[in-house]
Amino acid sequence: MGYTLNDLKRINTHSNRGMGLENDINVSNQFYLINDIAVIYKKPTPITISKVAYPSRYEAKIKEGYFKTPSTTDYNGIYKGKYIDFEAKETTSKTSFPLSNIHSHQITHLRKIIKHGGIGFLIVRFSTLNETYYLDGQELMHFLDTNNKKSISLSFFKEKGYLIKDKIQPRVDYLKIIDNIYFGGNL
Amino acid sequence: MGYTLNDLKRINTHSNRGMGLENDINVSNQFYLINDIAVIYKKPTPITISKVAYPSRYEAKIKEGYFKTPSTTDYNGIYKGKYIDFEAKETTSKTSFPLSNIHSHQITHLRKIIKHGGIGFLIVRFSTLNETYYLDGQELMHFLDTNNKKSISLSFFKEKGYLIKDKIQPRVDYLKIIDNIYFGGNL
Repeated sequence: MGYTLNDLKRINTHSNRGMGLENDINVSNQFYLINDIAVIYKKPTPITISKVAYPSRYEAKIKEGYFKTPSTTDYNGIYKGKYIDFEAKETTSKTSFPLSNIHSHQITHLRKIIKHGGIGFLIVRFSTLNETYYLDGQELMHFLDTNNKKSISLSFFKEKGYLIKDKIQPRVDYLKIIDNIYFGGNL
Repeated sequence: MGYTLNDLKRINTHSNRGMGLENDINVSNQFYLINDIAVIYKKPTPITISKVAYPSRYEAKIKEGYFKTPSTTDYNGIYKGKYIDFEAKETTSKTSFPLSNIHSHQITHLRKIIKHGGIGFLIVRFSTLNETYYLDGQELMHFLDTNNKKSISLSFFKEKGYLIKDKIQPRVDYLKIIDNIYFGGNL
């Protein structure tokens, strides 16, 4: 169709960047899966289905449904024998991450995961700054237990979290941070 | 409304039994969760949403969607620090469980889980016999790797699997089997 390589690169970058953090994590998880590094998936969006039609014997079509509030986080799986569980969020703020972005039962869920020996965390992208941080669940819970703030400042992420550097493959290499914290790796 | 206790018991039994194995596992998982024993959930059904309407500013309504083939198993979570992953199926057959009930990518998924150090298994209910079995992923993979049968016989479940006895609470106590196999518990 007469596209130059640069055109294709730009289009590809746009279509991938378009979906933001969620897409970046999904392609990172695919990379981990294909390379047999980890098995981590995003859970499907929870939906209440109220009407289904059957246009043919082999086809079911949802005619009415509603989004449900999720009771858990979006992502879970296994890495080096450990249970992995996290939520990923973007904010356009340049200074802090509003805690209203996370449901209280997602916090409760992460607490339980940590208590039962899993690795729970947040991935937060400050999209205006194009900076993505890993914040371990232990630090998050300590924050929530020791103050009543409605948001977590960027400086807290810088101090207690880890910047996940942009890479080509995998795009959001959060397992590298986990290697460092939980498996004695080097950043 | 004039119901006797026995009426209510029967109605309650019926409404719960109605949904079969899936419901029994869900209430068992709730029991595990409430009693802080394990954190295990059924994943939402994967759906492709093609049309959404917004009847009001705060309401989103799905107007068209389709069921997707799941790429993983239905249930996962954490128990005693271990990653848990399984699929649950019912069959009306009295003699064998047809392997066509499980998607090939669900088998692939369970293989990966086991390779990465997780506990993967099947729960199969022979509903006509009212017998529910735990079949560990290791046994399942050995079966699939050593023959070309299209189904797993009930006798194989009896020999290599574990009968999960009906209980009041939790109804399908599959973690008891896991205790025995993986944590040196007594059946």
